[in-house]
Amino acid sequence: MSGDATLNVTVTAIRPPGPALPPMFSRYKEQVEQALFRAVPAPPDSQLYLVMRYHLGWADRHGQPAKEPVSQGKALRPTLCLFACQALGGEPEQAGPAAAALEIIHNFSLLHDDIQDRDIERRHQATAWTVWGEPKALVAGNAMQSVGDLALLSSADGQVSAQTALRLSAILTESYLEMIEGQCLDLDFESRTGITTEEYLHMIACKTGALIRCSLEVGATLGADNPAATQVFARFGQCLGRVFQIRDDYLGIWGDPVATGKAVGNDIRRRKKSFPVVYGLEHATGAARDELLRIYRQEALTEADVGQVLALLEGAGASQMSQRLIQDNADQAIRELDGVSLPGWARLEAEQLVDFLARREF
Amino acid sequence: MSGDATLNVTVTAIRPPGPALPPMFSRYKEQVEQALFRAVPAPPDSQLYLVMRYHLGWADRHGQPAKEPVSQGKALRPTLCLFACQALGGEPEQAGPAAAALEIIHNFSLLHDDIQDRDIERRHQATAWTVWGEPKALVAGNAMQSVGDLALLSSADGQVSAQTALRLSAILTESYLEMIEGQCLDLDFESRTGITTEEYLHMIACKTGALIRCSLEVGATLGADNPAATQVFARFGQCLGRVFQIRDDYLGIWGDPVATGKAVGNDIRRRKKSFPVVYGLEHATGAARDELLRIYRQEALTEADVGQVLALLEGAGASQMSQRLIQDNADQAIRELDGVSLPGWARLEAEQLVDFLARREF
Repeated sequence: MSGDATLNVTVTAIRPPGPALPPMFSRYKEQVEQALFRAVPAPPDSQLYLVMRYHLGWADRHGQPAKEPVSQGKALRPTLCLFACQALGGEPEQAGPAAAALEIIHNFSLLHDDIQDRDIERRHQATAWTVWGEPKALVAGNAMQSVGDLALLSSADGQVSAQTALRLSAILTESYLEMIEGQCLDLDFESRTGITTEEYLHMIACKTGALIRCSLEVGATLGADNPAATQVFARFGQCLGRVFQIRDDYLGIWGDPVATGKAVGNDIRRRKKSFPVVYGLEHATGAARDELLRIYRQEALTEADVGQVLALLEGAGASQMSQRLIQDNADQAIRELDGVSLPGWARLEAEQLVDFLARREF
Repeated sequence: MSGDATLNVTVTAIRPPGPALPPMFSRYKEQVEQALFRAVPAPPDSQLYLVMRYHLGWADRHGQPAKEPVSQGKALRPTLCLFACQALGGEPEQAGPAAAALEIIHNFSLLHDDIQDRDIERRHQATAWTVWGEPKALVAGNAMQSVGDLALLSSADGQVSAQTALRLSAILTESYLEMIEGQCLDLDFESRTGITTEEYLHMIACKTGALIRCSLEVGATLGADNPAATQVFARFGQCLGRVFQIRDDYLGIWGDPVATGKAVGNDIRRRKKSFPVVYGLEHATGAARDELLRIYRQEALTEADVGQVLALLEGAGASQMSQRLIQDNADQAIRELDGVSLPGWARLEAEQLVDFLARREF
């Protein structure tokens, strides 16, 4: 038994460590947090805002400030927004309210996702709907969407013109409408088996890609009055969205349990129709395909089923194909950047970012 | 038996008919409908928009145009918006996108309300969540909120300046954030019995009043660049909101079944904590109070309970107090209008409107 344990440790240690979070995340961290604090008020006696502040990890369920604020995640979207702004010569301060808006909208979608997926834990705490019930979590999510909108509209209080604030507001709203469309498609996929990879890629372009693209588009608009450069950042963002989500899908199945905090095959256990599964169902043939279909038609999967799916996906080339798709989109993202002239530091950081998103372990 | 039937008919006929819908509703009806059609797109193969169009009564569950579009209700909010605009000398056409936004936001709240209240029928058709399931109805509601926002932002495509569009967008978003706050308070009331009438009036000022006030505020802003006049319309709207909701509460208990389509005591049967019930629980004393509390602590009410509550509310003066509060706020609404100079037709129509909302039977 101790031999097995040693073996496990060795296997984990052999795996090369994933890349560290690029420096842009720590550079903007404090600014993002301050912008968020400004955007989400804390009126006394308002349960609505309490639910929001709890969901953001700022307060416990009684409204007491969290002793150790729960990890906010990477704050990817606001970081992208501030980076795009600064890369094009703007002051990142100008983009603070927009960055906060993006993080708030992202969190509104998570709050409602938790209700829909009946998830009971997020960021190591009980999900809001399990604490306050579904109706209140639902309205708190709605309120959060509005608070995000107001944060963006407040951009015009600073040096941003009314025209620009209005345009940004339309870009943000259209993007999260696309995100919601993606959520609806995703819900549809739950009850289907014949999903093509093309359909899947369209769904994630909406559900995940739209807000990531929007983050860069909004940041670029605030950084420079240069529509061509903004379009470059938007296309860069489309590629990043695919890299981010397919890597997420990859990690959900083959991620290092030490880094992800989840067991190998976790998304298989949850019967999640992520890219590798969609690809496997599309490309497996004969008995392998029949076996995959049989397993996914079940209400719940045994550990033997999970092992079997892992083997079948490997056989169908799903792991290899996921990694190829990630790399292709990472390469494409870098090529898109050739369309805009960036200072050396920004180009380098953009490349670090792409590399991180493509190879991250967390 | 036939004698009984005759008696019922006679009783119904004795009640004086309520006032008819004032002419402003029919005058703006077509414009409201056209603005709504423009604001809610119908992309093919989008289930998200299908749910919205179904909820609005425009399509059946398969996406076929409704043979006979289901009644859209009175379209109170867009009508108020167009009226305020025209009363202050503006072109109602300018306010079309804003009017559509108000009706869409109102409908988004109904879509989510149906999920929370587990209501299975609205406007004589099955509610969206019963047709597509809760998760899809939820995301369709979210999308509807965004579609409403976009409609308002599109005001700037016409003759409205970016500054004004931005200001209106903030007013709308802040108002429906207040509406959501009201929904949260209302959810809280469900599990409480010691609600004061003051708390109740605050809740409805948020839940119902905010969007009604906003409709007039937005319309007035579009009608004239006159902040003082806008403030008058906002205060007029606050009074109207109370008139509208307390009359709604009154009709939910004592409304004419022929006009409302619901049985007498309907809101008592549903254990709804509307104004008369809150007032009754607050003002009943001794055995009457104990009996009310006993009945409302039950999970479900018998017909005998309903009859008993009707008698107890009458005894506590709840019906009389509801009517007094409606009249007081109607009078106050008219007095507010003295703060602005309106053309004769507009003043007359505003008075008709107040009278209708205070005495309506439907």
